[in-house]
Amino acid sequence: MTLSGKFITFEGGEGTGKSTQLRLLSEYLTQKGIENIQTKEPGGTEIGLELRRILVTGDKDKMDAVAEALMYYADRRIHLTKKIWPALEKGEWVLSDRFADSTVAYQYYGYEKRIPKDLLDDLYKISVGDFKPDLTLILDLDPEIGLARSMKKASGMVQKETRHESRGLKFHQNLRAGFLEMAKAEPHRFVVINADTDINSLHSQIVEVVNERFGLSHE
Amino acid sequence: MTLSGKFITFEGGEGTGKSTQLRLLSEYLTQKGIENIQTKEPGGTEIGLELRRILVTGDKDKMDAVAEALMYYADRRIHLTKKIWPALEKGEWVLSDRFADSTVAYQYYGYEKRIPKDLLDDLYKISVGDFKPDLTLILDLDPEIGLARSMKKASGMVQKETRHESRGLKFHQNLRAGFLEMAKAEPHRFVVINADTDINSLHSQIVEVVNERFGLSHE
Repeated sequence: MTLSGKFITFEGGEGTGKSTQLRLLSEYLTQKGIENIQTKEPGGTEIGLELRRILVTGDKDKMDAVAEALMYYADRRIHLTKKIWPALEKGEWVLSDRFADSTVAYQYYGYEKRIPKDLLDDLYKISVGDFKPDLTLILDLDPEIGLARSMKKASGMVQKETRHESRGLKFHQNLRAGFLEMAKAEPHRFVVINADTDINSLHSQIVEVVNERFGLSHE
Repeated sequence: MTLSGKFITFEGGEGTGKSTQLRLLSEYLTQKGIENIQTKEPGGTEIGLELRRILVTGDKDKMDAVAEALMYYADRRIHLTKKIWPALEKGEWVLSDRFADSTVAYQYYGYEKRIPKDLLDDLYKISVGDFKPDLTLILDLDPEIGLARSMKKASGMVQKETRHESRGLKFHQNLRAGFLEMAKAEPHRFVVINADTDINSLHSQIVEVVNERFGLSHE
């Protein structure tokens, strides 16, 4: 299997602007003549949307961190085999709102390392193998600001996607610290971007990183 | 955590009579004054029922064996943490229509070992740890007979649970052989019972095994 497309993932806490920035980057790439798809986790596929509803709605204690990790990896495996890998094989670029780093951030760092990190590494090997994103952008933001944005957005939703938001500030501070720790450990793959700015300047920063990383011209 | 109850699992192909026999054993144990619960996989919990619908309905190729294994283990982890372990802790016996051996039979033997056995062993460790059933009854039956029974049962269902049935005879012959191979490898835990008989004589055989295994009197 030759994957000629590029795989870019957007990571970060709630309300950091990932989905907006992903859409803007997709438009930018399209303008450059680069075919690309926009996707997300959980819920990048039809089955994934059913799993997403289970994962992000309802009571925060309805399942434990291990069960959550298994569900996220089931979603991820379907996402990879049915959507991400086929697109990359065709040479399309794939932009995903969250991928495996979110599982480490939420289920490991968020829960204060109550499950062994090895467990998540094993799940990664089982489900994803050696495959990795070509670039992971972490949109970094104070969770107090992000959660407020995210809850405001959820207030307009029919199906309230607030299961993770309900975990409280400490959980979200842990996962922010987790993302930063992961980025430090793998500096070639991750780029941390300060998301406490306006939409356009955040987009410009992201475009610069992508141009640089993949050798795209600046016009 | 002390698990003072006993955990008995029923395994076997489609249409082998597991759910009927489980109910009859439950009634027998109740008569003996042994508190017990009847449960099943997938779908032993509220979330599990949603996963069950995804797993056992629809097109057989809608996800691959690895994704299936992850989904079954997500269901299993929720089942264990929310229902099986709490009941065993209270001293209740738990009778489950399928457990982890079904994942090995379906996702490993059924698919002709296309995924490594280690992968399923790792998932077991991640999700279940060292815990095992006290007794596993395999109801063994020629799949041609079992599938015919199972399809007849499904014809009365609103939501057709025929995703696995649609895999064809060879798949089901593989999984029968798989169950028998597993039983051979772990003779202390497994008992294979010939299910090509009537309901009452099958029940009598099961009662005898259970009495013997757990030292229950015969009256």
